Amino acid sequence: MTQPNRPFPLLSNARCPLTVTIDAINEHGEVVSTEIAGEHPLTIYVDKREIVTLMTLGVAPEALTIGFLRNQRLARSLDEIATVQVDWEVDAVAVTTRNGLSQREEAKRMEKRTITTGCGQGTMFGDLMAEIEELRLPAGARLSEPGLYALLAAVRQHESVYKQAGAVHGCALISNTAHEPKIQMFIEDVGRHNAVDTIAGLMWLEGVSGENAIFYTTGRLTSEMVIKTAQMGIPILVSRSGITQMGWEIGRRVGMTIIGRAQGRHYLLFSGEERFVR
Amino acid sequence: MTQPNRPFPLLSNARCPLTVTIDAINEHGEVVSTEIAGEHPLTIYVDKREIVTLMTLGVAPEALTIGFLRNQRLARSLDEIATVQVDWEVDAVAVTTRNGLSQREEAKRMEKRTITTGCGQGTMFGDLMAEIEELRLPAGARLSEPGLYALLAAVRQHESVYKQAGAVHGCALISNTAHEPKIQMFIEDVGRHNAVDTIAGLMWLEGVSGENAIFYTTGRLTSEMVIKTAQMGIPILVSRSGITQMGWEIGRRVGMTIIGRAQGRHYLLFSGEERFVR
Repeated sequence: MTQPNRPFPLLSNARCPLTVTIDAINEHGEVVSTEIAGEHPLTIYVDKREIVTLMTLGVAPEALTIGFLRNQRLARSLDEIATVQVDWEVDAVAVTTRNGLSQREEAKRMEKRTITTGCGQGTMFGDLMAEIEELRLPAGARLSEPGLYALLAAVRQHESVYKQAGAVHGCALISNTAHEPKIQMFIEDVGRHNAVDTIAGLMWLEGVSGENAIFYTTGRLTSEMVIKTAQMGIPILVSRSGITQMGWEIGRRVGMTIIGRAQGRHYLLFSGEERFVR
Repeated sequence: MTQPNRPFPLLSNARCPLTVTIDAINEHGEVVSTEIAGEHPLTIYVDKREIVTLMTLGVAPEALTIGFLRNQRLARSLDEIATVQVDWEVDAVAVTTRNGLSQREEAKRMEKRTITTGCGQGTMFGDLMAEIEELRLPAGARLSEPGLYALLAAVRQHESVYKQAGAVHGCALISNTAHEPKIQMFIEDVGRHNAVDTIAGLMWLEGVSGENAIFYTTGRLTSEMVIKTAQMGIPILVSRSGITQMGWEIGRRVGMTIIGRAQGRHYLLFSGEERFVR
C-alpha cells in the first residue's frame, strides 16, 4: 500500500534478537535454562537533538521511532521524515527531517509533560486531552460476537515472545473490512506503549488508516491507551484486561466501542454498543 | 517510627474513592454492574513550578508525590519538604520546600529524560544508571523458601482493588526481621511505578530503611523496577511476573536477589542465590 508518489523515508533495518537465554533455579533446586525478553535503551535524536530514551524489546525500532514522533505529535505526517537510522552499537536512532520539526510547537509540548498510567509513568508531551475534545470516531464499523471470538483466537496464536519469555505486552491492528477481522500487524514489546507506538509507525509506513480497523491490546485500558487508539482513528478497542475510570470516560466521549476482559468466550462491553452485533 | 526531632512535612489527607461502579454488557447480553479502578490526573507543583502530571488511583497521593520526588532524585531527604497539599478540585498537589530544590541539578536532570518500560514509557529524569554503578546492596538479608510461600499467601489476601476491579498493579514492602516476612505496606495503583513511588514516599514518612526488607510487585521486572528497588536499598525483589534482560543484568550488577514467576508453589530464582535458603 506504499504510495510511490510521496517521498518515503530511508530506514535502517535493525531488529534485535528478541529473547536471550539465562540460567535460573526453580522450586526443585534445578538449574533451568530460561528465555527472557530483551530490553534495550534506544535514544532518539531528531536532527541531532536528543529527544528521549525509550526502553524497548527492539522488534521494529524504526517503526517505533516514527510512531513515537507521531503519537507525541512531534511529526504531523510521514513526509516530514527523511531518514531513520538505528545504531545498536550506541543504542541510538538518528532521525533527520526534511524541514525540521516545528521548534516552537515542540517547545510548547515539552513544557507540559504528562506521566500516564501505562506503567504508571509514561510520558506524553503536550496536552492530548484537548485534542480528544474535537475527535469523533467513524460510526460505520461493526464487530460481531463470532468476529470477536475469531479475533481472540487469532491473537493467541501470535503471542510468540510472550509464550517463550513472558514480560512483554502485545498489540494488534486488525483489519475489519466486510466485518471479517483479520490480524494485519502484531507487535510485542517490554513496554505496552512502545507496542502501540510501533503499530502507529507501521500504519504510516504502510499507508493504513484506522477507520476500518480494530485495535487489540493485552494491556489495561487506561486513559493513555484509549487516547492513543482514538488518535489513530480506530473506532473499536479490545483488551484482555480491565478498564479504568478515565479510560471509560474518554472512550464514551469520543464514541469508541470498548470491549474488555475478553478471554475465551467471556467479555464485557464497556461502551459503544451500537457497533457491536450480538 | 516518626522521629519527633526532625521537621516533619505538613500533609493533606486526600485519599480518593478507589473504585467506581459502571454498567457493562456481558457475553449473555446482560447489563452487569461492574466496579472499575479510579484514575485521576495529579499535577505536581513544587514551589509553584509545574513538574509533571501523574495518572493515579489516588490511594495515597501525598506519599506518591514525596516518593516521586525521592525516586527522581528531585529531593534528597524528607527534611527538604515543608508541605504537601493535594486538592482534587483542581487535580493538583502543591509542594513547598524549605530551601528550594536545587534548580541547577533539576535542570540538568530534566535535560536527560528516559522513557522506561513500566508501561513502555515511564519517565525518569536524570541518568539513574550511573548511580547504579556505585550501588552495592547489603549482604546480610536472608529469605527462606517457606518464608517466600508465606509472603505470597499474605500478598494474595491484600489485593483488594485488583480483586474488585482489576486494572491495577500491587506492590508491597515486606519486613524481614529475623527472616520472618511480614507485610508492612501494600499499595495498588493504576500505574505500577506509582505504586513503587508511593511506597518510597511512605518509607521516608515512616522512617523505614530498605536494608531488612523485601520488595514485592505484581508487575514485570524491567530495568526501571530493579533500579527503583536498588535505590530504596532493598536487597530482595519478588514478582509474580517475568524478568527482562536489562532487569536481570542490573540485578546481578548490584547484587540483588531476584525471584520471578512466583505463584503458589512455583518460582524462578534469577539472581543473588546466596540470600535464598532452600
